[in-house]
Amino acid sequence: MADSDKTTDERAEKLVQRAERVAALIEKRDFHQLRDDLIKLEPADVAEVLGSLDDADKAVIFRIVPRPLAKESFEYLDVEQQKSLLNALGDSRVAIILNEMSPDDRTALLEEVPAQAAKQLLQLLSKEERAVALTLLGYPEGSVGRLMTPEYLAVKETLTVIEVLEYIREQGREKGDLDVVYVTDANGKLVDDLNIRELLLSKFGTKLSEIVDRKYVSLSATEDQEAATQLFKKYGRPALPVVDSGGHLLGVVTIDDVIHVIEEETTEDIHKLGAVGALENAYIRTPLAELVRKRAGWLVLLMIGEMLTATAMGYFEGEISRAVVLALFIPLIISSGGNSGSQAATLIIRALAVGEITLKDWSTVFVREVISGACLGAILGAIGFLRIVMWSLFFNIYGPHWFNVGLVVSFSLFAVVVWGVLVGSMLPFGLKRVGIDPATSSAPFVATLVDVTGLVIYFTIAARLLGGTLL
Amino acid sequence: MADSDKTTDERAEKLVQRAERVAALIEKRDFHQLRDDLIKLEPADVAEVLGSLDDADKAVIFRIVPRPLAKESFEYLDVEQQKSLLNALGDSRVAIILNEMSPDDRTALLEEVPAQAAKQLLQLLSKEERAVALTLLGYPEGSVGRLMTPEYLAVKETLTVIEVLEYIREQGREKGDLDVVYVTDANGKLVDDLNIRELLLSKFGTKLSEIVDRKYVSLSATEDQEAATQLFKKYGRPALPVVDSGGHLLGVVTIDDVIHVIEEETTEDIHKLGAVGALENAYIRTPLAELVRKRAGWLVLLMIGEMLTATAMGYFEGEISRAVVLALFIPLIISSGGNSGSQAATLIIRALAVGEITLKDWSTVFVREVISGACLGAILGAIGFLRIVMWSLFFNIYGPHWFNVGLVVSFSLFAVVVWGVLVGSMLPFGLKRVGIDPATSSAPFVATLVDVTGLVIYFTIAARLLGGTLL
Repeated sequence: MADSDKTTDERAEKLVQRAERVAALIEKRDFHQLRDDLIKLEPADVAEVLGSLDDADKAVIFRIVPRPLAKESFEYLDVEQQKSLLNALGDSRVAIILNEMSPDDRTALLEEVPAQAAKQLLQLLSKEERAVALTLLGYPEGSVGRLMTPEYLAVKETLTVIEVLEYIREQGREKGDLDVVYVTDANGKLVDDLNIRELLLSKFGTKLSEIVDRKYVSLSATEDQEAATQLFKKYGRPALPVVDSGGHLLGVVTIDDVIHVIEEETTEDIHKLGAVGALENAYIRTPLAELVRKRAGWLVLLMIGEMLTATAMGYFEGEISRAVVLALFIPLIISSGGNSGSQAATLIIRALAVGEITLKDWSTVFVREVISGACLGAILGAIGFLRIVMWSLFFNIYGPHWFNVGLVVSFSLFAVVVWGVLVGSMLPFGLKRVGIDPATSSAPFVATLVDVTGLVIYFTIAARLLGGTLL
Repeated sequence: MADSDKTTDERAEKLVQRAERVAALIEKRDFHQLRDDLIKLEPADVAEVLGSLDDADKAVIFRIVPRPLAKESFEYLDVEQQKSLLNALGDSRVAIILNEMSPDDRTALLEEVPAQAAKQLLQLLSKEERAVALTLLGYPEGSVGRLMTPEYLAVKETLTVIEVLEYIREQGREKGDLDVVYVTDANGKLVDDLNIRELLLSKFGTKLSEIVDRKYVSLSATEDQEAATQLFKKYGRPALPVVDSGGHLLGVVTIDDVIHVIEEETTEDIHKLGAVGALENAYIRTPLAELVRKRAGWLVLLMIGEMLTATAMGYFEGEISRAVVLALFIPLIISSGGNSGSQAATLIIRALAVGEITLKDWSTVFVREVISGACLGAILGAIGFLRIVMWSLFFNIYGPHWFNVGLVVSFSLFAVVVWGVLVGSMLPFGLKRVGIDPATSSAPFVATLVDVTGLVIYFTIAARLLGGTLL
């Protein structure tokens, strides 16, 4: 039975059916049929089934499926689920899983459990595996070292293709992915990363030294994982080697792990753009206290910034009391500045994040944004003016000086939008320049900055144009 | 010379040096040395060098490097650069490149050039390649079909491992990546996708039918590329097969293309969150007119929404003229609601996008957000109250009723923050429910919604608490 899912809808329907069937079999305690069903699934699908069950049932399923499937499924669970499953299993099962897990996935698990639990888990490892685990945990959090696995296939350049193929057949089972073969010289220094393709396209008798092109791209164990994701995007490789300063192989990073790092990094960026401190876990599993804390910080900071609007408006209290009509347009004007600033910041932050533009492009961006801002400001200013004129022709809500009020609102909109666009587009450059993540200039942050200055712009224009009439 | 880049900094420095060296060699017209330099680089690096040059110099470099390197480098250029380079090259060169390009990369190029130019380019293809190109272009934009390549390795299940290895050596050069071998039955239906690892770990005489587990995950050519990215994330495969409704192989999608789709999708989501219409090209290459158009739409819509604030405040004009002090806190109160709403929307939209939560979690989220909102509202309300009390102890800026004003501001902040959090967290669910992308509930959109209602909340509370004294 080929497990061919033809369309997105069929696939979703199948997931629902599968979950129902598993639940029914567990209900009936028909573990024999359950096992037969599960071994037909991909490990990632078994993990998905496990994810929907409570810990006791998880542990049951875990005991009835064959060991290799259990271990592989475990690797597809997210860390939170791994932790709760380990609690539900006995020490001997935990030992088996931990010892058989890929070292990189194990690092991800160990770095998330509390120090005391990590210590206990390390005790369950064999001497060799413990040494590996401790080495990987020795690299700083968020570094390439935490992402790498020391399971890779390295061969000497003096071997022939057929010798390598024989070596793979004998030893390859312990060597992780085999998409790339790492060729080393007599001193163990990396000479080349050979895609398995190159090997398979060569004659059996060919020496590796004849195939290698001695060009490779490598990572350092201590550099940031973000650097690794950039290289994977640029070079499109299935795996990249990690070498020490002497050029010796320490391990490899594979693209499937990198996809998850990219997702995590993007989530962090998006949260920053929304002025939320980066959460450690998934939203739904973040404790409420942490959720409030991560949001309160920025919210309070923004509020303190926004208090300056009250101070600014205090200076114009006289104007407001003389012309209450001016107060009516305050939200409209400051929010237009905030919105146009948010748009500009979003565009620039993302362009910086994907490397489309760099710091040196600031002047090009400045010119583009001045022009864009002027166009947008003109559009909004015109609409604001029309709205006041049209309402005033039918109702007497903006008083006898409605035409001048319209001009004030219109000019203010123009000026505030241009200002908002400039602040929004230049702030990310400024932050990056001083070494702060540009994504910190979130939409709310830019809006708050523009609110305060927007008020000053509005009342200054009002004082100019309405002095002697309304003011 | 092993091209080992050890750290992020060294790598960046090297890029600068390389660009300078290439520029100097072009300046000197020392093409011999330039060629020697370039053939030591990875194709992605050659593409990077090309990217920094003008079209004439690009074309020169393109003619001096060996054909396979030229073709591979071309595939790493982005579509805009590919277009301009094709313009600078003669028809015969263009024909060579187009015929040798991977069909999936060629599709990406052809779908971006104007219809007339695409027609001309198609004329340059051989009969076979033109048929392939037209088939791929026949799938809808954004579909899996546009992403797939028909270059894959398919073998019958009756073959032995050694027979497959021999077949690969003879035919594999035309078959794209060789990480996965596709096994078909006598009728050409897909039986299994076999990782090359499985093949390499088996004895030469083993029949494929003994290795296959008949489990595979497949895509449909017409489904959305987003569905493909979800499957790649879930299963962590280097490639996924695309089959028709009869289970016959149409092509494969590889993970390196998927990484770019993920990046594009994320950019679109982030732009939406910032209330910008998705740009077709990179920010820096988007024509100014388009840039303005993509931003004006949302900005005008938001402004029209925000005009309701002027209408709402019109109803409270009497209150404002009696108590101008109330106007001072308008920006503070509505922006606090907007900011807390933006935070909530950001968290929920991202959690929905990565599949952490689904529609059915809305009630859990509702409870969590009511509690979070109440906590955040209490914090902001307390700070607002303290600020007014402390200022009033030293200055007489908020009048004789400062204590009551403080209470009004404090209660309003609490109510507006709770309301903002609820709108921000529930709106994405509502949009998704009716089939609209949740990311549409951008920070500015939520802020605008909350601004209007926030004013009504503020003045209603003010009327209650200040009636008889200030009002």
